[in-house]
Amino acid sequence: MSQVAELKGADIAKQYLVAEEPYYCPVADEVETYEAAYEARMPMMLKGPTGCGKSRFVEYMAWKLGKPLITVACNEDMTASDLVGRFLLDKDGTKWQDGPLTLAARIGAICYLDEVVEARQDTTVVIHPLTDHRRELPLDKKGELVKAHADFQLVISYNPGYQSLMKDLKQSTKQRFGALDFDYPSTEIEADIVAAEAGIDKDVADKLVQIAHRARNLKGHGLDEGISTRLLVYAGQLINKGVKPDVACRVALVRPLTDDPDMRETLDAAVSTFFE
Amino acid sequence: MSQVAELKGADIAKQYLVAEEPYYCPVADEVETYEAAYEARMPMMLKGPTGCGKSRFVEYMAWKLGKPLITVACNEDMTASDLVGRFLLDKDGTKWQDGPLTLAARIGAICYLDEVVEARQDTTVVIHPLTDHRRELPLDKKGELVKAHADFQLVISYNPGYQSLMKDLKQSTKQRFGALDFDYPSTEIEADIVAAEAGIDKDVADKLVQIAHRARNLKGHGLDEGISTRLLVYAGQLINKGVKPDVACRVALVRPLTDDPDMRETLDAAVSTFFE
Amino acid sequence: MSQVAELKGADIAKQYLVAEEPYYCPVADEVETYEAAYEARMPMMLKGPTGCGKSRFVEYMAWKLGKPLITVACNEDMTASDLVGRFLLDKDGTKWQDGPLTLAARIGAICYLDEVVEARQDTTVVIHPLTDHRRELPLDKKGELVKAHADFQLVISYNPGYQSLMKDLKQSTKQRFGALDFDYPSTEIEADIVAAEAGIDKDVADKLVQIAHRARNLKGHGLDEGISTRLLVYAGQLINKGVKPDVACRVALVRPLTDDPDMRETLDAAVSTFFE
Amino acid sequence: MSQVAELKGADIAKQYLVAEEPYYCPVADEVETYEAAYEARMPMMLKGPTGCGKSRFVEYMAWKLGKPLITVACNEDMTASDLVGRFLLDKDGTKWQDGPLTLAARIGAICYLDEVVEARQDTTVVIHPLTDHRRELPLDKKGELVKAHADFQLVISYNPGYQSLMKDLKQSTKQRFGALDFDYPSTEIEADIVAAEAGIDKDVADKLVQIAHRARNLKGHGLDEGISTRLLVYAGQLINKGVKPDVACRVALVRPLTDDPDMRETLDAAVSTFFE
Amino acid sequence: MSQVAELKGADIAKQYLVAEEPYYCPVADEVETYEAAYEARMPMMLKGPTGCGKSRFVEYMAWKLGKPLITVACNEDMTASDLVGRFLLDKDGTKWQDGPLTLAARIGAICYLDEVVEARQDTTVVIHPLTDHRRELPLDKKGELVKAHADFQLVISYNPGYQSLMKDLKQSTKQRFGALDFDYPSTEIEADIVAAEAGIDKDVADKLVQIAHRARNLKGHGLDEGISTRLLVYAGQLINKGVKPDVACRVALVRPLTDDPDMRETLDAAVSTFFE
Amino acid sequence: MSQVAELKGADIAKQYLVAEEPYYCPVADEVETYEAAYEARMPMMLKGPTGCGKSRFVEYMAWKLGKPLITVACNEDMTASDLVGRFLLDKDGTKWQDGPLTLAARIGAICYLDEVVEARQDTTVVIHPLTDHRRELPLDKKGELVKAHADFQLVISYNPGYQSLMKDLKQSTKQRFGALDFDYPSTEIEADIVAAEAGIDKDVADKLVQIAHRARNLKGHGLDEGISTRLLVYAGQLINKGVKPDVACRVALVRPLTDDPDMRETLDAAVSTFFE
Repeated sequence: MSQVAELKGADIAKQYLVAEEPYYCPVADEVETYEAAYEARMPMMLKGPTGCGKSRFVEYMAWKLGKPLITVACNEDMTASDLVGRFLLDKDGTKWQDGPLTLAARIGAICYLDEVVEARQDTTVVIHPLTDHRRELPLDKKGELVKAHADFQLVISYNPGYQSLMKDLKQSTKQRFGALDFDYPSTEIEADIVAAEAGIDKDVADKLVQIAHRARNLKGHGLDEGISTRLLVYAGQLINKGVKPDVACRVALVRPLTDDPDMRETLDAAVSTFFE
Repeated sequence: MSQVAELKGADIAKQYLVAEEPYYCPVADEVETYEAAYEARMPMMLKGPTGCGKSRFVEYMAWKLGKPLITVACNEDMTASDLVGRFLLDKDGTKWQDGPLTLAARIGAICYLDEVVEARQDTTVVIHPLTDHRRELPLDKKGELVKAHADFQLVISYNPGYQSLMKDLKQSTKQRFGALDFDYPSTEIEADIVAAEAGIDKDVADKLVQIAHRARNLKGHGLDEGISTRLLVYAGQLINKGVKPDVACRVALVRPLTDDPDMRETLDAAVSTFFE
Repeated sequence: MSQVAELKGADIAKQYLVAEEPYYCPVADEVETYEAAYEARMPMMLKGPTGCGKSRFVEYMAWKLGKPLITVACNEDMTASDLVGRFLLDKDGTKWQDGPLTLAARIGAICYLDEVVEARQDTTVVIHPLTDHRRELPLDKKGELVKAHADFQLVISYNPGYQSLMKDLKQSTKQRFGALDFDYPSTEIEADIVAAEAGIDKDVADKLVQIAHRARNLKGHGLDEGISTRLLVYAGQLINKGVKPDVACRVALVRPLTDDPDMRETLDAAVSTFFE
Repeated sequence: MSQVAELKGADIAKQYLVAEEPYYCPVADEVETYEAAYEARMPMMLKGPTGCGKSRFVEYMAWKLGKPLITVACNEDMTASDLVGRFLLDKDGTKWQDGPLTLAARIGAICYLDEVVEARQDTTVVIHPLTDHRRELPLDKKGELVKAHADFQLVISYNPGYQSLMKDLKQSTKQRFGALDFDYPSTEIEADIVAAEAGIDKDVADKLVQIAHRARNLKGHGLDEGISTRLLVYAGQLINKGVKPDVACRVALVRPLTDDPDMRETLDAAVSTFFE
Repeated sequence: MSQVAELKGADIAKQYLVAEEPYYCPVADEVETYEAAYEARMPMMLKGPTGCGKSRFVEYMAWKLGKPLITVACNEDMTASDLVGRFLLDKDGTKWQDGPLTLAARIGAICYLDEVVEARQDTTVVIHPLTDHRRELPLDKKGELVKAHADFQLVISYNPGYQSLMKDLKQSTKQRFGALDFDYPSTEIEADIVAAEAGIDKDVADKLVQIAHRARNLKGHGLDEGISTRLLVYAGQLINKGVKPDVACRVALVRPLTDDPDMRETLDAAVSTFFE
Repeated sequence: MSQVAELKGADIAKQYLVAEEPYYCPVADEVETYEAAYEARMPMMLKGPTGCGKSRFVEYMAWKLGKPLITVACNEDMTASDLVGRFLLDKDGTKWQDGPLTLAARIGAICYLDEVVEARQDTTVVIHPLTDHRRELPLDKKGELVKAHADFQLVISYNPGYQSLMKDLKQSTKQRFGALDFDYPSTEIEADIVAAEAGIDKDVADKLVQIAHRARNLKGHGLDEGISTRLLVYAGQLINKGVKPDVACRVALVRPLTDDPDMRETLDAAVSTFFE
C-alpha cells in the first residue's frame, strides 16, 4: 500500500474500533491465552453454545488490544465474493469493492467470522492462505495478492453441538486454528451480568438464572438448546419495564424456546417455582 | 445520517404510518406486554395459526405506538439482498437501493417479517446483528454499517404447526426474540369481528363462527388447518351482497379448504345445520 | 397515481378489455355468485379439470363486468419478478417495468393466474398483501407501495386432481380465496358448445360428446385425465374440414390422450361405435 | 403490426421458406390430415421413434403449404426466454430480441418444437395461450401481447417410448394438440429412401433395410432403440464412397447403437448374413 | 458469408491447421474408413479408453486431410452458449462472439468434442441440426441460421466403460454418428510410440509396455482403468532425464493410478520384475 | 506474445518469485525426482495428509528452480472462469482479465492447484489441454488459444484419505500426472522444524512431536486426522509467548481437533504425560 492508501486505511480502521469497553467477565485464563495467540497472530476458533458470550469476548478483546474489529455473520448462501469483494459497475466502468475479509486484511483488523460452519466451502477455503505462514489473500478476480497487515488476525466461532452432520469444517480448515472453549458463565457471574444489563435486582436476576439452569438440564431431553444469557437479559428487561415476572418469563424464556406442550408445561412449572 | 438525510428519512417514515386505527380486539394482556417489549426494543416473535390476526395485531400496535410499519412477506426464494438492498445501474453507474429491512432500520420503523420460516437461512442470519446489543446492520456489499434508529424494532411471525420438519428457525435465531402466542379469538369476539367487517347481523355472524368451530375441531383429523376468521368475513361479505347463506358458506368456507369429498360432505352438513 | 398517469392507465386498460362476448353457457349460479364476489372484490379460486372452461369463464365475466383482464400462465420457473416487475437497462440507466400483476393492480384489471400451483412459492406469497384487507403490493426492489385500484380483483385457477403431492397451495394462501367448482358441462350444453365452435351438426357433436363420456369414465382406470371439451372442438373442426369422422377422432381425441396400446384400443372401439 | 413492420415480416418469412422439395414418401393419409389440421390452424403433435421421419415430414408439409418453417431443438436447459425472446443491451440501452416462437407467431410461420418433452415446464406452459382460441403470446417482460399471424401454426414432436418417467407432457399441454403417429416406413419405401439418399443400388439398400429389421426386433430385448433410417443412409453413403459393405455396416449401424458385446455380436452376425 | 467474411474465415482457419504431422501409427483400416466418412461429411464418434490415442487420431486425420481442427474438452458445467457463442458487452453495445462450434461451422473446420458425455443435454442437443441433412446451426439468441461450410465435420469421443449410469448419450444423439472403436495399440506399436516420444531405448520402452499389460489385466479387478500410453511416455521421459527406472515407474505409473495399498504392492512388484 | 507483452510478462513473473528460501527438509529423493519431472515439464500430483508439507515443498521447489509460483486454493464453488479468466466491464466496454491458470501459462510460472478434488469437473477438465503434448489453453470465451510458456508446469495436490466417495479425480485427469507421496516428517526432522519455526528449545519441540505421534495413532480410531506439523508449530509459538505448555497444547493441539469428550480426555492425558 502507498503512504496515501495507508493513511486512508488508518481512517477506515478507526470506524471499526470498539468505542466503549464491552461488559465482559473473564471465566478462566481465556484473556491471557488470547493475548498470547494474538501476539503470534495465530488464527483462533471460539467454540461454545448459542448466546454464551463468544461474540462479546471478541469485542472485549478487540477493545482491550485497541484493534479494529470487523464481524461477519456467516450463512449458507454467502459466497466467497461476499467475503473477498467484487467488481461493481461505476460510471467509469467496473470498480473493485473490498469485502469485509479483504478490508480487515488491509487495515489490520481482527476479522470475526461468526458461525463459520454455516458458510459454504468456498468461503472457508478462501481463508486458507490467510491462516498459514503466507498470511496473504489472493484476489483472483482482480489479479492482486493482498499481504495481510501486521495487525490482522482471523477469529471464527462455532457451536459444536449445534451443526448438522452435513455441516462441519474440513480438517484442513480446522487445523489452521488454535481453539478456546466457551460455556455459560457460572451462576454468580451470570446473575451479575443479567442484573447489570437488564437493570434489575441481583435477587431477581438470580431467580432467572436458576430457571435457566433447569432448562439447560433439559438440553438433549426435549430441548435442542438451553436458555441463553441473552434471553435472561430480555426477561429482566421486561420485568424492568413493569411486566409481571411470570409473564416476562413466559414471553422471553419459554415461548421462544419450544412449541412442545409438555416442554412448555415443564418450563412454566419451573417459572412458577420462582415467581408466582 | 446527516440532518438532510434525517429530514428525508422522516418524510419516508410518514408514508409507512398506519393512517387509521385498525380493527383489533385484545384477547389478553398482549397489548401491554408488547408495549413493554417495544420500550426495550426487544425483537418479538408472534406465533399462531393462519389468519388468526397476527398481522392485524402488528398493524394495530404500530398505529397505537405511532410508528411506521414496514411489512415483508417472506418466501423461500427471497435472498438477503431482497431485505438489505442492492446496487442498481443508473445513468451515472451503480446506485445503492435500500431494502425494506435497511429502510426500517434507518427511519425507525417496526419491521414485520411475515412467516419468516419460509425464508432461506441467509435472510434469517442477516437479522442477527439487528437483534442483539449491537442493533446494527452491516451492508457488506456497500461497505456501510447502519446503526439502527432508536425507534426501530424487529417483529417476526410464524405458524408453529404449519412448517415442515425441514423448515425451522435456528436456535441461534430463536433465542433473539421474545414470543407471544396467538390463537383464534373467543366466540363472542370473533362474531363481533365478522359482523363488523362484513356488515352483517351479529346473529348470522354467530352462526358462521359456530360453523368455523366445527371445522377447527377437524384440524388434524382430515383438515390441515381450520377455517380462519378471514374466511368467515368473506362468507359474511357474500351474504351481505345477496348471495344465499348456504351458497356463501360453500364458496367461502368449504371449497377453499379441502378437495376431499368426505371432508366436504362433513363441512356441508355443518353448514346445513345452521343455514338451509 | 397522478392524473396523467391515471389517463395513461385507462388507455392501457382498454387494450385488455375483452372485445367480443366470449361463448359461455352458465351451468348453475356461478355467474351471480362471481358477481357478488367481484362486488366485494373477494379473491376467487376456480377449481376443476383441464379444459372444462375455467379460463373461458373468467373471460366471460371480465366481458360481462366490462373490466380489463390480464392472464398469466403460471409455471414452476416463474419468479416473483415475472409477476411484479423488474428494472431494465435503458440508455439513461435502469427503468422499472411493471409485471402483469402490478399492471393489473394499477389499472384495475381482473388478474387471472392460471394453474397457480405450478408456480414457486415466491410467486404465491407475493400475492398475499393483495388478497387481504390491505389490497396493496409492495415493490420492494423499487421501494414503492402500490395501492390496488378499486376495480382490481385477483382470480386463480387450479386442477385439484392433477397436481403432484409435492405441489399444493399453502393453507395461508388458500384461505385468502373464495372458491368455485367447475366440471365438464352437461351433455346437452357440451354438444351445443362443440357444434357452435366447430361449425358441425348438433347430431355429430352429440356423438363426439358420447365418446368423451366413455373416456371420462376411464379416468383413474388407465387414463390420467378424460377428453376435454377443447379436444371435442378439435375433432369437430377436422370433420368440418372434410376429414373422415373416425380419422378425426383418432387424431384429435385418442392419439393426444394416451400411448398405452390397450387404452388406445378401448378408445378406438368407442369411436367405432359412433362413427364407422 | 404497422405496414412497414409487415413488409419486414414478409422479408424475414422468406428466409424460412423451404427452398427445395424435401424427399418424403407418404405412408398413409398423414398429408391430407395434416392439411385439414393446418386449415383449422390446429396445433399438432407428431409421435414416433428416433429418426423415423417426423422432422422431414414437417419440412415437407411446410414446403407443400408454402409456409415458412422455424425449428427449435428442445433441451432441458432451455428457458422460456430462449423461445419467447429477451432484452439485449445495445448502445442505446436494452433492445428486445424476439425468440423463435415469437418470430414464428409474428411472421406466420409453422413453429416446430422438436422433442418438446426435453424442455422444462416453463417452456411448455409458454405455448398455452398460442394453442387455444386466444392464439396470442404475452411477452410479459416486454409488456406486449402478440396476436398470432393468421398463418401461424404450432407443431411439436415427441418419442413416446423414449422419455423417462420423470419427463412427460402435462395433460393440460397434451390436450391442446391433435396427434399423428409415425413409425419407420415399410420395407419397400425405406429401401427406396436409402437408395435415393445414399446413391446406392436398390439391391444393396434392400439388404441394409433387412439388417435394420433384425435390429428393430431386438428393441426392448437388449437394445434401447432400433436402427433408424438415418443410420441406413449413413451406411449406404460409406458404401458409395468405397468402404466395404461389412465395414460400413459395422461403422454406421452396429458401433453407434450399443457397447454390449453380446448385442454387437448378434448385430455383426446379422450383417454377415447379408454382406460377407 | 460475404467475400470479405470468407477471406477472414480463411485467415482464421489457418490458425487451426495442424502444422506438423502428429505421430500416429494406424492399427487397422481406421484411416481409410475415416477418409470415406469425411468425404460424406458423416459425423463420427470415436470410442475407447482413456489415453489410447483418440485425440491423437483426430489430430492426425486433420493434418492428413489438411483441414483446420477445433477441439473442445467437454465438461458438465459447459452450457450451449459455451459452444455456440454469446453476446459480449462492447463500448458500442453488445457484440456477438462465436463459440468454437459456430466458428468451426463457419470456417469449415473439423470440430472435435472430447468426452461429450460429460456435457449437459443442452450441449448435445445443440449439435443435432448440424448432424443431419440440414447441416445448419440456428443461433437463436442472435436470430441467425448458420449454414455449415462444405468442409465442416463434427467428431465426438467417449469412453464406453467410463461414464456413470446417469450419463449416456441419448439415442436420438447416438444415431447421428458413425462410430469407430479404439483400444490400446499392440505391444510392438506401443513400444515404438513410447521409445519415440520419450527418447529412450526400444528395450526399456518394451519393459514399460509389459508393466502396462499387467496393470491393464487388473482393470475391473481393483483398478478402474489400466495404465495409458501417455503414462508410459511420462515414465520414459523421467528415465531419459536420469531418474532410476523403478523410481520413474513408481512416480509415473503406480502412484497416479491408485491409492489402494494392495494394488500399489501388486503394481510395485510388477515394476520390480522388470527393473530392479 | 509480442516483445512488449513478453517484457510485461517478465515483470509480472517477478512478483510471483519466491523471495526467500522456504524452510524445507528433504525426506527422500523427492527434490531430485521433482527436478527431473520439471525438466520434462511433466504435470505433477502431490499426495498426502493435511499439513504435512505439500504446499511448502512446491514453494521450496519454485524457489530452488527460480520460477514464479501461482497458487490457487480450490473449492467446490470455483468455476472454470475463476481459473481461466473472464470479461470485465470497463469504461470502454468489456476487457479480458486472465485467471491465475492463464497467467501462469503466459508468464511461465509453476501453477499449483491446492486440493484440486474440491473443485468441480469444469475446473479439472479445463486443465486437460495443458497437461498433454498440446500444452495449450483454449480461451473459448475470448477466442484465443494460449500456447503455454516453455517454463510453465502444472502441479496439483490432494489428500487421498480425506475426500468423500463422491469426490475423486476422473481417471482421464489422473492419468495426466506423475505423482509423489508425502507424509509427516520423521520425528527428528519434525522436531527440528517445530523448534526452528516456533523459536523454542529442541527438547520442548521433541515433546510436542511425541504428543503428535500418539494422536496420529488414533487416526481412524476416533480421530479423522492426526495432529499436523502446523498445529505443533502453533503450540510452540504459544509456549514461546509465555503460555504454560499444557494450556498451549490444549488450545493448539486438542481443542481444534475434536469435540468428542473421550478423545479429548485421551489427548489431554497424552499432554499431561509430557507437560504437567
